[in-house]
Amino acid sequence: MAPRFTVTYFIRAQDAAEAKARALDIALEQTVEIPRNAVPKGYVEDEILGRLEALEKDLNGREGYLASISYSEDDVGGDFLQFLNIVFGNSSIKPGLRVEDILPSPGILELCKGPRHGLAGLRARAGIGESPLLMSAIKPVGLSTSALARLAGDFALGGMHFIKDDHGLVDQKTAPFAERLKACVEVVGEANSRSGGKASFVPNVTGPANAVLDRAKEAEAAGAGAVMVAPALAGYDVVRTLAADPEFALPIVTHPAFSGANVVSPDGGFSHRAYFGTLHRLMGADAVIYPNFGGRFGFTRKECLSIAKACAADMGGPKAIVAAPGGGMTFERVPEMREAYGRDVMYLVGGALLQESNLVDACRRLVAAVDPKGD
Amino acid sequence: MAPRFTVTYFIRAQDAAEAKARALDIALEQTVEIPRNAVPKGYVEDEILGRLEALEKDLNGREGYLASISYSEDDVGGDFLQFLNIVFGNSSIKPGLRVEDILPSPGILELCKGPRHGLAGLRARAGIGESPLLMSAIKPVGLSTSALARLAGDFALGGMHFIKDDHGLVDQKTAPFAERLKACVEVVGEANSRSGGKASFVPNVTGPANAVLDRAKEAEAAGAGAVMVAPALAGYDVVRTLAADPEFALPIVTHPAFSGANVVSPDGGFSHRAYFGTLHRLMGADAVIYPNFGGRFGFTRKECLSIAKACAADMGGPKAIVAAPGGGMTFERVPEMREAYGRDVMYLVGGALLQESNLVDACRRLVAAVDPKGD
Repeated sequence: MAPRFTVTYFIRAQDAAEAKARALDIALEQTVEIPRNAVPKGYVEDEILGRLEALEKDLNGREGYLASISYSEDDVGGDFLQFLNIVFGNSSIKPGLRVEDILPSPGILELCKGPRHGLAGLRARAGIGESPLLMSAIKPVGLSTSALARLAGDFALGGMHFIKDDHGLVDQKTAPFAERLKACVEVVGEANSRSGGKASFVPNVTGPANAVLDRAKEAEAAGAGAVMVAPALAGYDVVRTLAADPEFALPIVTHPAFSGANVVSPDGGFSHRAYFGTLHRLMGADAVIYPNFGGRFGFTRKECLSIAKACAADMGGPKAIVAAPGGGMTFERVPEMREAYGRDVMYLVGGALLQESNLVDACRRLVAAVDPKGD
Repeated sequence: MAPRFTVTYFIRAQDAAEAKARALDIALEQTVEIPRNAVPKGYVEDEILGRLEALEKDLNGREGYLASISYSEDDVGGDFLQFLNIVFGNSSIKPGLRVEDILPSPGILELCKGPRHGLAGLRARAGIGESPLLMSAIKPVGLSTSALARLAGDFALGGMHFIKDDHGLVDQKTAPFAERLKACVEVVGEANSRSGGKASFVPNVTGPANAVLDRAKEAEAAGAGAVMVAPALAGYDVVRTLAADPEFALPIVTHPAFSGANVVSPDGGFSHRAYFGTLHRLMGADAVIYPNFGGRFGFTRKECLSIAKACAADMGGPKAIVAAPGGGMTFERVPEMREAYGRDVMYLVGGALLQESNLVDACRRLVAAVDPKGD
C-alpha cells in the first residue's frame, strides 16, 4: 500500500447521515468517478478509492461537518495537477463543499519540493536580518518604460526590497516586456550602487503557454531579482516547475489574480489558509500576495492571519514562505499590521506611495514605520 | 483610440449610487489599480482606464445592478492571460461581483481565433451528419492499460464517437500515459476496421508545465483523434496555444476539473454561459464538458441551456462549438436531454455504461436512443 495524503472538507449537511453520504460521494468522485457498485474489487477499491477517515460536526458555527478523506499517492502518478484534481477536481463543482486543510504525505512532499528560498532566503537576498520585507509595484499600465523605470529607481532608493511590475503589465506597446525589464533592472542597479542597498526588480511573468517559462528565464538572465506569476491564470504547475528547475534560481512571488472565486465563498472553494498558505507553499512560491484585511477586499483579519500562519507552520519539508498582504495598504495601517503580523511578513504598499509627492522620502518613512527599532 | 471590449458584471448593491461607486471601483481595479486621483491624465486616463458604459437594475430577482465596463485592447498587449486578468483578475476577489457576459472586440477575436474544428468539424471527424455526438470515458484509475484499452475498444465497437481518458488518468504506474495512449489508439483503430466507424481516442493531456504541450503533440503523433485539457488546472492559455499552433491539428475537449468555484456561487465568479460558453470558445475548445442538470452536480436546466446557447451564438468570428453535458447521465435521461438540447450536442455518458454487463450492446442502445430517426 502506498502512503496516503489527507484532505479535510467542510460539507454542508443537516445531519451526520447526510454528511456521511456526501463524504462517501466525494471519496468516489475524486478518485474512481463511477458508482460504488461498479468499483473493481482489489487494488482499485483498496488503494485508489478515497477513504473516509474521520467525520465530525463543524464547530465554527456553520451548518455542516468536517470530513477527512485520504487518497493514495499511487493515484497522483507524479503529476501535481492530478494531485490538485484529487484534492478538488470535480468536487469543486459541488455546492456547499470547501477544502479546509490539506495534509501532504511523503510522496507529495517529494513531488512538491517547495520554495527554493523561502522567507530566510528572501531576507538574505534583501540584505536584511529579522526585519519585515517591503515590496512595491510600478504602475499603472499605460506609462512609458522610462516613466515606469523612474518609479522603480525611486522605490529602490527609498529602501524597498522588492519592486515588482503591476500584475497588469505584460507586453503592452507602451512598455514592452523586454525593454521594461532591461530598463528597470538597470535603474534599480544604479540605485543600489548609490544607496548600498540590495533592491530587486520583480517582473510580471505571463504570456502564451509556450513562452511563460522562457520569459522567467529571460528575466533571470537580464538580472531580475525574482519573478511574479499568477498561478490561477498561468496554470498551477508553472511555479512548481520553475522552483524545481535546476536552470532557474530566482525567488517566485505569486499573485492572486483570477483566483478569487476559490476563496470568497464561505462554503465553496478553499479555506484561505489551505489555498494561499498550504497550496502556494507546495507549489514553491517564496512569497504569496493576498489582499489584506481592511483594504479594498473583504478578507477578515482572522483569515489573513490564518494565511500567515500556514506560510510558516511545520509541514515536514517545505521552507517557511512569506505572507505578502497588500491591496489598499496605507501608512495609517502600518501599526495595525505590525501588531497583527509581527516581523515575518512582506508589506506590499503600492498606490499609497504613488500618491506621495516625494516617492523616495515616502518609501523611507515606510521603512522606518514598519520596523521602528531597526534591524 | 483602440477598439474596446466590454464586460458586463452583476454587482450586489442596495441602490444605484452604491452600484455606481462599485462599478467605478472595478473600472480602476481592473486597469490602473491606483486611486482615481493618482491616475495620470492623457493616455492612461483616456485609453487604459476602464470606462463605465451602462448601469441598470438587475431584473433577475437579485439585489443588485448590471454594469457594463469597456476596456481598451491596448491594455491586453496581445496576452490572453492579461485579457482574463482585465476581465476578472483582482475583482474576482471582491464579494458580490460576477461576470455575466463578455463582448469581445475585433482585436480579442484576432488574439483568440477560436476552435479549429468546432461542432461541424467534430461531426466530420466522427463521420456523421447532423445527429448528436457521443462520448464516453475509460475508467477508473487503477485499472491496467489492457483493461482500459479493452473498454476503449468496446466503446468504439458500440458506436461511441469519442472515447476519452477519465480526467484522473495521468501517468500512473498501472497505466502509464504513453503505453495507454498507444494501446487505446490501436484497439480503437481495430474496432473501427471491424465496424466501419470513425471513433477517436481522446487522451487526457496534463503533466508538468514544461511537458503539457509536448504531450498533446505526442498524442497527435500516436494517432489520437482529439485531446482533453482541464484549463483551470493546466492554465488558461494552454488550449488557445494548442488551437493556434500550426504544428498541431487535433480537436480539443475541455474538462471542468478544479473550475467549480468559478461558477457555483450565485453572486461570484462567472455566469455559466460566460465561463463555459464564451470563454471556452475564445480559448479554442471544440467541445466543452460541464455537469448536466439533474445529475450529480447542481447546475440547473436553465444554466445548462445557457451554456449550449453560448456555444453556438454568433460571436462574429469563432466557430460554434459543442456542449458536452455529462456527470451522472443515464439511459433514462436521454429523452429529457434530447428535448432540452436538440441534436447539436455531445452526450457524455460514462459510469452508466460501465455498469452494463454487455458494454458494446449498451453503447448501441445509447446510439439508437439519442437519435431514434437515425442520421
